[in-house]
Amino acid sequence: MSYKNYPMVSRVVFGRGCFNQLSELLEVKRISDKAPFIFIVDDVFKGNAWITGRIPLAYSDEMVYVSTDEEPKTSQVDELVEKIILTHKDRPSGIIGIGGGSVLDIAKAVSIMLTNKGEAKDYQGWDLVKNPAIYHVGIPTISGTGAEVSRTTVLTGPDKKLGINSDFTPFDQVILDPELIKDVPKQQWFYTGMDCFIHCVESLNGTYLNTFSKSYGEKAYELCKEVFLSDTVDKKLSDEMLMMASWHGGMSIAYSQVGVVHALSYGLSYVLGTKHGIGNCIVFDQLDDFYKEDLKIFREMKTKHGIELPKNICKDLIDEEINTMIDVSLGLEPLWENALGPNWKRKVSRTDLHQLYRRM
Amino acid sequence: MSYKNYPMVSRVVFGRGCFNQLSELLEVKRISDKAPFIFIVDDVFKGNAWITGRIPLAYSDEMVYVSTDEEPKTSQVDELVEKIILTHKDRPSGIIGIGGGSVLDIAKAVSIMLTNKGEAKDYQGWDLVKNPAIYHVGIPTISGTGAEVSRTTVLTGPDKKLGINSDFTPFDQVILDPELIKDVPKQQWFYTGMDCFIHCVESLNGTYLNTFSKSYGEKAYELCKEVFLSDTVDKKLSDEMLMMASWHGGMSIAYSQVGVVHALSYGLSYVLGTKHGIGNCIVFDQLDDFYKEDLKIFREMKTKHGIELPKNICKDLIDEEINTMIDVSLGLEPLWENALGPNWKRKVSRTDLHQLYRRM
Repeated sequence: MSYKNYPMVSRVVFGRGCFNQLSELLEVKRISDKAPFIFIVDDVFKGNAWITGRIPLAYSDEMVYVSTDEEPKTSQVDELVEKIILTHKDRPSGIIGIGGGSVLDIAKAVSIMLTNKGEAKDYQGWDLVKNPAIYHVGIPTISGTGAEVSRTTVLTGPDKKLGINSDFTPFDQVILDPELIKDVPKQQWFYTGMDCFIHCVESLNGTYLNTFSKSYGEKAYELCKEVFLSDTVDKKLSDEMLMMASWHGGMSIAYSQVGVVHALSYGLSYVLGTKHGIGNCIVFDQLDDFYKEDLKIFREMKTKHGIELPKNICKDLIDEEINTMIDVSLGLEPLWENALGPNWKRKVSRTDLHQLYRRM
Repeated sequence: MSYKNYPMVSRVVFGRGCFNQLSELLEVKRISDKAPFIFIVDDVFKGNAWITGRIPLAYSDEMVYVSTDEEPKTSQVDELVEKIILTHKDRPSGIIGIGGGSVLDIAKAVSIMLTNKGEAKDYQGWDLVKNPAIYHVGIPTISGTGAEVSRTTVLTGPDKKLGINSDFTPFDQVILDPELIKDVPKQQWFYTGMDCFIHCVESLNGTYLNTFSKSYGEKAYELCKEVFLSDTVDKKLSDEMLMMASWHGGMSIAYSQVGVVHALSYGLSYVLGTKHGIGNCIVFDQLDDFYKEDLKIFREMKTKHGIELPKNICKDLIDEEINTMIDVSLGLEPLWENALGPNWKRKVSRTDLHQLYRRM
């Protein structure tokens, strides 16, 4: 048996206002005047001087806004990479992602594709990346996905939604500034926070789990419970705790996997473009057969924050569409194996999944 | 305000038996036939083929046994470095420490001193190291110190006991194999485990604490409580949990500091050579004025495992010796500031410390 040699984020700075250290952190990483830093920024921050005014642009550095209305696509990564190559003679000094999971994943993927031939879709899977990525920095502005610490970058390609899982994926530098997440709208705060809670549920209930991942998952699970259920934690502290929950939740995946929620949710977003956070919640809410006890807690959180999940989003789909969802979902074998064990194929049928999707 | 940019261990593999992957992990790191791997091994493993038989020696690789009867010294590091330089024409491909906190600290210090001029004592302090260390690997065979994950390497020098705290100190690779700690003798298991518990107590009660460090410290604290107080955790699981407690406890120091226990314990070991783990316990047991609630739990653990601490180890010392202890202790300003706040000097007097030491 061989155990995964997990690549950790090289450096992390945590603290309220530490975003102000960005300039100082990048300074020593600039290769030359002609090798720019490319800042990939969630376009929700367009015109938000409090964020963008602190992005240190010099020489030929560039700020690229990306929309996160849709889940990130391999084609979007390819376009960004092409644009960077065409605009700048020299390879960039670094890629800096400022945003939520989607933006962080795009930044990771771009930094990989700048040093690896072909298209992003060629690298969807496990350990297909050949060359180290260029220096890349992650700055989360919403908490929950764990993208800031993970070794994957989830992308929707022409024929699958699957991550670029590789040793070169994790960020070289992460900046955890809890102040940056203070203005996240409530619904998004909830759905993205639930991504973390659901990670933990899936990881802690999975067959892949070991004591390493369990210790991270348990801490993240606890922090989520406090953030979403406690009446005594103030907003500032709650933001800090959710930021750490996301971090530990992401680390807990090192020796585990997500499970049934993510498997089904990937199908949903592949066909309907459902965003990851809300998609997870819609799926989770139907999975009493798999995660009964944790669902109680989830529903308590939902009620406490007055969250109403969309209903009947699959009701009017044609069977072919449902079948595509099932194909995408069942293609994620490690997720099913983690959730249900090596004999998972005997434990879940296409008919079961069909019924589950129809109920969503 | 500027926050520390914490350098993390680059890679970690965790799993029962993962020590067997050492050869495979090193293979890709060999610079040339003439650039050896130097294995620094606790001499308690002399003749223990179960450990040493799995150390992959090739070309001019070398295994160096070190005694850990005494706390590691700067002079010991300098001697090892000199020997390596005299024996091998090429700079080593890597340094691998296999042992407890002392051995791991020696390995870290040797890897730093192979690329930095002068003597190890010149680098005792914060951020004095100029050049990156050579590739270094940590393989703990006892759990609690957190040396496997920390950015320090605690050494006793000619005039102080103080760490080489630097961004280049953390290991490039850590191998966490819980099987390696299965035969640790009970007393040592307890004292070293208490190093972790005490780290957490000092960090969680300190003024430096932030939400990042708190989340790690709380998890490590909880794991320690389970390991040392639960009746339902079996030995295998307990070893795994203690290994993770040590890891998280070490990480909790990222944005915190140890406190009064370590400050006094350094004085003790500087004058009497008291080993770190037992020294901490002897000191902690006298600190009702500082850590009352946690001391109750510590005493419960002590009773449960039938641990009798040495008594009156300072009773017959001359005042000059006690004064040296106090000097060493008070020299550790960040520890005191963390424990008692910026006005710590008003809160603790030499007379107090004199009395405390006399009681030990």
